[in-house]
Amino acid sequence: MEVSLQEEDTIVAPATAPGIAAISVVRLSGREVFAIAQRLFSVKNLSDKPSHTLHYGTIHSKGKVLDEVVLGLFKSPHSYTGEDIVEISCHGSPLVTAQIVAAAIEEGARLAKPGEFTRRAFINGKLDLTQAEAVADLIASQSEAARKTAMSHLRGGVSQKLKELREQLIKFSALIELELDFSQEDVAFADRAQLYAIVDAATIEVGNLADSFQLGNAVKDGVDVAIIGKPNAGKSTLLNALLNEERAIVSDIAGTTRDTIEEILQINGVLFRLVDTAGIREHAEGTIEEKGIERSLQKMKNADMVIYLFDVRENGEEVLAETDRLTRQNIQFIPVGNKMDLLPAGQINENLSMIRDAAFISAKEQTHLQELKQRIYDRVISGDISTEDTLITNTRHVEVLRKILQSLRDIRDGMDRGIPGDLLALDIRHCLHYIGEITGEVSNKEVLDYVFSKFCIGK
Amino acid sequence: MEVSLQEEDTIVAPATAPGIAAISVVRLSGREVFAIAQRLFSVKNLSDKPSHTLHYGTIHSKGKVLDEVVLGLFKSPHSYTGEDIVEISCHGSPLVTAQIVAAAIEEGARLAKPGEFTRRAFINGKLDLTQAEAVADLIASQSEAARKTAMSHLRGGVSQKLKELREQLIKFSALIELELDFSQEDVAFADRAQLYAIVDAATIEVGNLADSFQLGNAVKDGVDVAIIGKPNAGKSTLLNALLNEERAIVSDIAGTTRDTIEEILQINGVLFRLVDTAGIREHAEGTIEEKGIERSLQKMKNADMVIYLFDVRENGEEVLAETDRLTRQNIQFIPVGNKMDLLPAGQINENLSMIRDAAFISAKEQTHLQELKQRIYDRVISGDISTEDTLITNTRHVEVLRKILQSLRDIRDGMDRGIPGDLLALDIRHCLHYIGEITGEVSNKEVLDYVFSKFCIGK
Repeated sequence: MEVSLQEEDTIVAPATAPGIAAISVVRLSGREVFAIAQRLFSVKNLSDKPSHTLHYGTIHSKGKVLDEVVLGLFKSPHSYTGEDIVEISCHGSPLVTAQIVAAAIEEGARLAKPGEFTRRAFINGKLDLTQAEAVADLIASQSEAARKTAMSHLRGGVSQKLKELREQLIKFSALIELELDFSQEDVAFADRAQLYAIVDAATIEVGNLADSFQLGNAVKDGVDVAIIGKPNAGKSTLLNALLNEERAIVSDIAGTTRDTIEEILQINGVLFRLVDTAGIREHAEGTIEEKGIERSLQKMKNADMVIYLFDVRENGEEVLAETDRLTRQNIQFIPVGNKMDLLPAGQINENLSMIRDAAFISAKEQTHLQELKQRIYDRVISGDISTEDTLITNTRHVEVLRKILQSLRDIRDGMDRGIPGDLLALDIRHCLHYIGEITGEVSNKEVLDYVFSKFCIGK
Repeated sequence: MEVSLQEEDTIVAPATAPGIAAISVVRLSGREVFAIAQRLFSVKNLSDKPSHTLHYGTIHSKGKVLDEVVLGLFKSPHSYTGEDIVEISCHGSPLVTAQIVAAAIEEGARLAKPGEFTRRAFINGKLDLTQAEAVADLIASQSEAARKTAMSHLRGGVSQKLKELREQLIKFSALIELELDFSQEDVAFADRAQLYAIVDAATIEVGNLADSFQLGNAVKDGVDVAIIGKPNAGKSTLLNALLNEERAIVSDIAGTTRDTIEEILQINGVLFRLVDTAGIREHAEGTIEEKGIERSLQKMKNADMVIYLFDVRENGEEVLAETDRLTRQNIQFIPVGNKMDLLPAGQINENLSMIRDAAFISAKEQTHLQELKQRIYDRVISGDISTEDTLITNTRHVEVLRKILQSLRDIRDGMDRGIPGDLLALDIRHCLHYIGEITGEVSNKEVLDYVFSKFCIGK
């Protein structure tokens, strides 16, 4: 656990997003919070007021009134950081906000570093490390699934999964230590069969958690989907058809701006960013098609998935060749035949019917789009893992989980080889160490610096 | 006074700026606030909790936990709107914020219209109309002078100025009405000499207020200053020299982004936006200079003021011709001779020394820049009015003030002509009516719609 003198200072930062708004909140945390706030605020005897109360008054600095504000008091330990906290709700002017922050600094506070409030919450035991990380994820969540996953982590979902394993291993470790104390007598308090069972169950559990990272990552960051295809295959029409319905839903929700949703599609709560290659098409027109498509692929190689759109009236040979090429290039793709509305029913030519896993739609008539969406979703959500499970969304977590898996394997191998109790205890301690790394019971400055550097100032 | 059933509904809106941040605040106001909040919030018996208290818990909707939040309670009439208010501080994710707003709407609240919270504050007598308008100005204030002026209005500065006049006129009006009641007896309770004194003092006072609009407007909205001049006169160097020092100061303040400050200079707290015509210069190069400058002027005709920069090593004839042209075109400008560092001391040629009110600087060596700034400032702040006075910043106010001035003139004319008491009383009532229009004691839906339409949602 990090021990630092830093939390002796009182920190201050704007807590709300910059910009013109009704209100803006400036947050202070630390030992001197009430003394500093008192020097700025018109209401007397702040420190005598009860925790969790609101006070209306004026903030003044250097003899001038900066703003009329509402002050919220949180007394240690009943606050986000565990320290005394004052939240100043001022008028939502960036200038006023900055002036209040400056006035607090003038009175002895210091501008908070990114994530410093949450770091203090962690140091003071208000959150474990996975919960602290979930705060940043929750704030950045852009889809319902991402929000739900972050919320589950914030409520201790990941730690909970590891808690039972940790307790079982600690108990087992204690029994082994007992054996070592009685080593002259050659007794075995710790039932090896029981440890096998614990280790095997944990291996499955931890393995599932580690495996959930692919989905977790998709849920957290969204999935980039490139729509490729020849000119006039209907890429823009498909893009609009997929987005249209969504747009109507999303723009109903206050605070979402068009800019951020235009290319965003949520399927079962997971966010997919659709990238039309219409821009590329322009250049491709008039050149050899194959090159055009390759250029699209080149541009879209950062995409997680590709929708390869073709006109169902085409001769299928070219399409087959293209799907072969995509397969050879190890590109995750869904072949989608468009313009079914223009084709006499059931008349797909033989070549096209040979394409594996193809979907057939009409973007114009909006037929079979739901099935296509499900297909896109299923391509990400492979296996039995669902967004209802606890999902690992954090690279740091998956790396440590892999170390836990390795240490579980070491324990098992050791038992297979019948190693002595003291070595077994060491292996178990390794495993416990890694579990502690995830939750932050074991941490060092570098890990904490890494974790909290990704936060915004004020959090 | 507007009477409406609208304030029966409970309104909801995000109160903080959109964007990812530590926290975000959703505000509800109205009759059903506690009932609606109770259905969303985990803490029991909200309506029994005291006003001005904070409560930690979870917000849930449709069986799922949306977020862990802090709820602030304000009970009527001790709130911003005068109604019951609940403020929900949630994690600063636009998605979470939108979901909480949506959940409140689901439970019976309605999305607030722009300015609706403040409109309710006005209707419930928490603010007069000038104070309500000051809220919007304060939020939008981008300079210290603008903030201070808005703060002065918020604290009743404008209304206060008119209050005494209003009371005097009401008192006088009552005396005249008394005369009318005793009209058979031909008595004069109301001393005409006193009314003259009141009207004359008021005319000066109201005239000063109306005159302060030019400065007030500059203070509120800032002043656009175009820097024009021949290529190589040093426009960009001057721009950077003026901004450099400022930039260092401003970028120290948290929450201000570079984008908004790059071209902004504060002189004595008033905001000046400097517009370099460097972009124009590019096109001008290689063409006849005169045309280049004219094009600059064309582009910059929306500027409030022009800095005409010339090289002091030039033959002054062309410069003199240019200043003449600017004068003829009625353009507010300051002629500024640059590159004094390259000129042997005191060697300004005779033509240049004839230019009226010219400033001579070295942008490169940063000499005499303070004097230039003061010169720029003085060009706006003409006369005896200072930013310490109550400044009118609002077009609506200045229009009504001019009506008040006219009605004061009518009263005086009437007295000069010895019109009967009942007509005099009518003139006074006109004047009182206009005073009431400024403060909102007299208002109608159109005025209120106009005033509050300029607010953001959530205020």
